[in-house]
Amino acid sequence: MTVHPMLIAGTWQAPAATAATFSSRNPNTGETFPDAYPVATAAEIDALLDTGLAASIALAATDPAKIGDFLDAYAEGITAAADELAALAHAETGLPVEPRLAKVEIPRTTGQLKQAAAAARAGDWRMPVIDTANNLRSQLEPLAKPVLVIGPNNFPFAFNGIAGGDFAAAIASGHAVIAKAHPAHPGTSQRLAEIAFAAVQSAGLPAATVQLYYRSSHEEGHRMASDPRLGAIGFTGSEGAGRKIKAAADAVGKPAYFELSSVNPVAFLPGALAEKATELATEFSGSCLLGVGQFCTNPGLLLTIAGDATETFLATAAENFNAAPSGVMLVPSLPTELDEAVVALTAAGAEVIGRGTQPKEPGFRAQPALLRVSGATFLENPAAFQREMFGPGSLVVVAADADELAAVAAHLDSSLTAAFYTASDGSDDALYDRLVPIIAPKAGRLLNDKMPTGVAVSPAMVHGGPFPAGGHPGFTAVGIPASLRRFGALRCYDNVRPNRLPATLQDKNPTGTLWRCIDGSWTQADIG
Amino acid sequence: MTVHPMLIAGTWQAPAATAATFSSRNPNTGETFPDAYPVATAAEIDALLDTGLAASIALAATDPAKIGDFLDAYAEGITAAADELAALAHAETGLPVEPRLAKVEIPRTTGQLKQAAAAARAGDWRMPVIDTANNLRSQLEPLAKPVLVIGPNNFPFAFNGIAGGDFAAAIASGHAVIAKAHPAHPGTSQRLAEIAFAAVQSAGLPAATVQLYYRSSHEEGHRMASDPRLGAIGFTGSEGAGRKIKAAADAVGKPAYFELSSVNPVAFLPGALAEKATELATEFSGSCLLGVGQFCTNPGLLLTIAGDATETFLATAAENFNAAPSGVMLVPSLPTELDEAVVALTAAGAEVIGRGTQPKEPGFRAQPALLRVSGATFLENPAAFQREMFGPGSLVVVAADADELAAVAAHLDSSLTAAFYTASDGSDDALYDRLVPIIAPKAGRLLNDKMPTGVAVSPAMVHGGPFPAGGHPGFTAVGIPASLRRFGALRCYDNVRPNRLPATLQDKNPTGTLWRCIDGSWTQADIG
Repeated sequence: MTVHPMLIAGTWQAPAATAATFSSRNPNTGETFPDAYPVATAAEIDALLDTGLAASIALAATDPAKIGDFLDAYAEGITAAADELAALAHAETGLPVEPRLAKVEIPRTTGQLKQAAAAARAGDWRMPVIDTANNLRSQLEPLAKPVLVIGPNNFPFAFNGIAGGDFAAAIASGHAVIAKAHPAHPGTSQRLAEIAFAAVQSAGLPAATVQLYYRSSHEEGHRMASDPRLGAIGFTGSEGAGRKIKAAADAVGKPAYFELSSVNPVAFLPGALAEKATELATEFSGSCLLGVGQFCTNPGLLLTIAGDATETFLATAAENFNAAPSGVMLVPSLPTELDEAVVALTAAGAEVIGRGTQPKEPGFRAQPALLRVSGATFLENPAAFQREMFGPGSLVVVAADADELAAVAAHLDSSLTAAFYTASDGSDDALYDRLVPIIAPKAGRLLNDKMPTGVAVSPAMVHGGPFPAGGHPGFTAVGIPASLRRFGALRCYDNVRPNRLPATLQDKNPTGTLWRCIDGSWTQADIG
Repeated sequence: MTVHPMLIAGTWQAPAATAATFSSRNPNTGETFPDAYPVATAAEIDALLDTGLAASIALAATDPAKIGDFLDAYAEGITAAADELAALAHAETGLPVEPRLAKVEIPRTTGQLKQAAAAARAGDWRMPVIDTANNLRSQLEPLAKPVLVIGPNNFPFAFNGIAGGDFAAAIASGHAVIAKAHPAHPGTSQRLAEIAFAAVQSAGLPAATVQLYYRSSHEEGHRMASDPRLGAIGFTGSEGAGRKIKAAADAVGKPAYFELSSVNPVAFLPGALAEKATELATEFSGSCLLGVGQFCTNPGLLLTIAGDATETFLATAAENFNAAPSGVMLVPSLPTELDEAVVALTAAGAEVIGRGTQPKEPGFRAQPALLRVSGATFLENPAAFQREMFGPGSLVVVAADADELAAVAAHLDSSLTAAFYTASDGSDDALYDRLVPIIAPKAGRLLNDKMPTGVAVSPAMVHGGPFPAGGHPGFTAVGIPASLRRFGALRCYDNVRPNRLPATLQDKNPTGTLWRCIDGSWTQADIG
């Protein structure tokens, strides 16, 4: 049995012979892979923190162009190894090579890294603000401590702790990253770390700029989260684990960002359903079943008002779910948890109206599920009906009327997204105007006439929201340069001598294209 | 005995006959004032939250110009009542009417309110970002929940929960404020709330836009901090109370900002002292003794290297402290705590080198204190020597050499500020370059050749830093519009129909002067 090494301070360090290990399983077959990965010891965690801290202090004073070079080289390295990586990730996650991994997720990941490279060079994430009269100059700066990035199971590349959005944002803003591989895809993560480290070397950055471990005890994880050597945390994953990490980080006032749970309400207002119930049912079903529903922005809670068109919508959606094949999920617990959620929702008063094919093949297969519940029953226990069904599952709330739907809306918890489908003739507008002020403050992204599953990497994207959908409502995990700002410390230079100012705050614009807010106006010009 | 009412939902509500009450004391005489103020009950806290929530939902949809009108009217109301307010605050705080209250703090407060009014109208705090190709438009928006503002003892106007910087920022960003008066100046706070409420009425805002209570049980305070009806918290005060409020807010992921403790290191490097030790000693003494040292940016920890010039500096500073009169402090605990700190620092190995006049008059009088400690002794117990001496007290660390000073710097905790005095001939630059990367990441503001006590209200100011000096290193409590962003929720409008977009995200620039980042460029232009 091979026990794989961790990447600590530029060395692939073999675990002690006594190290606890774990192995992941093949979602398509259920078989356990022969490879073993170590559980990091306290000494190894300390080494990650010590060397990550030293690297971060160095990176804070490093020319951002070199950081950009690293990110570009890493993106190119991933592209060069794309076939191998896609095959590896397919084996570990069950996600299809085509189109998902090779055509969508890997290009998204390299695109994010390249955007982050450009953002590091451009420097706009720092948002320099200069008051010439008072000679006060401020900007966001790196924390000068490493960022711990803990990625989720559902994106082996685009949200991976060693390659995804949080990684790119933390590096581009001048930090070393201590990446925790998701234990469901340790091999993919290890291969990515090899490519990343080669790029670190080619760019001439400190060896500990990227480090990788696979797992630690909960105790060590919480110690790490509260350790003063660690600057910040980006965590995407389960609510239970996330809340504990958050408590440890909060106790010492460490910035920590989370993406834990979201049902992503989608309201289909009566006029929209009257216009095209069948078409919308198919659009919804496609979005909910896509990728076996394993998206944080999966539409898990639908809001409707009772009526003929709603019944047409439900009948079509139910047919689609009934016809859906069982799909391979990422880890063995997910199909079980989906089944448990169906049982719990049913016990609380919901009715199963569509259920996909029962799995017959081996592997971690889930049976898609569509449920409905009346608004009145929902209101008896709103928390029970907002249980996230991670995977191909959704609950349709059928309210008796607009008042009941508004009451349901008032009981919604936070989500990443909230979407509204409304009539083209304006007949839903009054209800839209009534519901949006109730629902919008609970979500980071408000959509019209569109399912929430796609998350464009755009400077104007918001992938976040109030806790526990997000970690702090003022930030986004997707979208460059905004995502970099999560790891910034706002610093003012008060009367600091001109030659000692960071280049981005000197009178001369260092790039000629950096946007700075000088005496109240955004400009790319020099001062004076 | 008069028991004063609380301002709840536009009504000055008399407390129940059974309500617990407290009275404040006159710092100049030590006498207890005859006025009593109620401790809010659970029912009253609930009323504040319920009505504050409704008002905040309304304010989130209110024309920001009306919010600006309120802030301007409030500033004018304070100016009109300035003499009365200054007299009231003087009686409650012992701070001098002239120049402090009438000439400095009240104008600063009304200036902040007017700047906040302008910021509300301008809307730049929202930082609109528009991606036209993807039709994604995002900006910061109000939380649609009230903000609890808990102000400190040391600024009865400029940081008062009902009138200060956090209040102005929360209101200008579209929130109702639930203000907790500091129990040392409840009468000043009540009078301010009267003026604020008159302005609320004249501007036609919801009655619960401003509310005031004076005190609650700790239990009720923590319940409030974690209540889902509350959107955010701004807290300036003691570290013990603040940490408990923070824990309650963090547990539910509520944004909460703190300013709890700061020793504000000031390094006097050898070349600077060689040039003008006496002059710098006087500059330091004046800053430390100003306002009886009751500033969060008071220079509480000096960093020096042993030498003749340092001894000259210390001798002059000690003389200044020895000659300093005892000063009236805000509350009776402060002189006691200063004395306790002197005892603790001495026990840990520091030496008292200057001590002001022993108080003979009545009232809450403190004896200024200057202490010194060797770098070696500091390094034996860095935490003990960073105990904040709130008031006219400072500890000078005299390191044996540059290496020892760097070691001391490495052990510093977070502060609001870090200042460096260096030689004009560049002879300190190497040491400056060595120390700044160690110290700067620990502070929100880095100063050169300047004491930290002044905090200009500027868009480029940073009054914050890592916890516990600040609450989140990415934000500032002083400086408009940056301080407003603490209370913003980032929201994306994805494919939202044009007529449903907020004015600030529509194609047409709503004011013609709003700065928006459109497709990567900041501009005041319309789209298309």
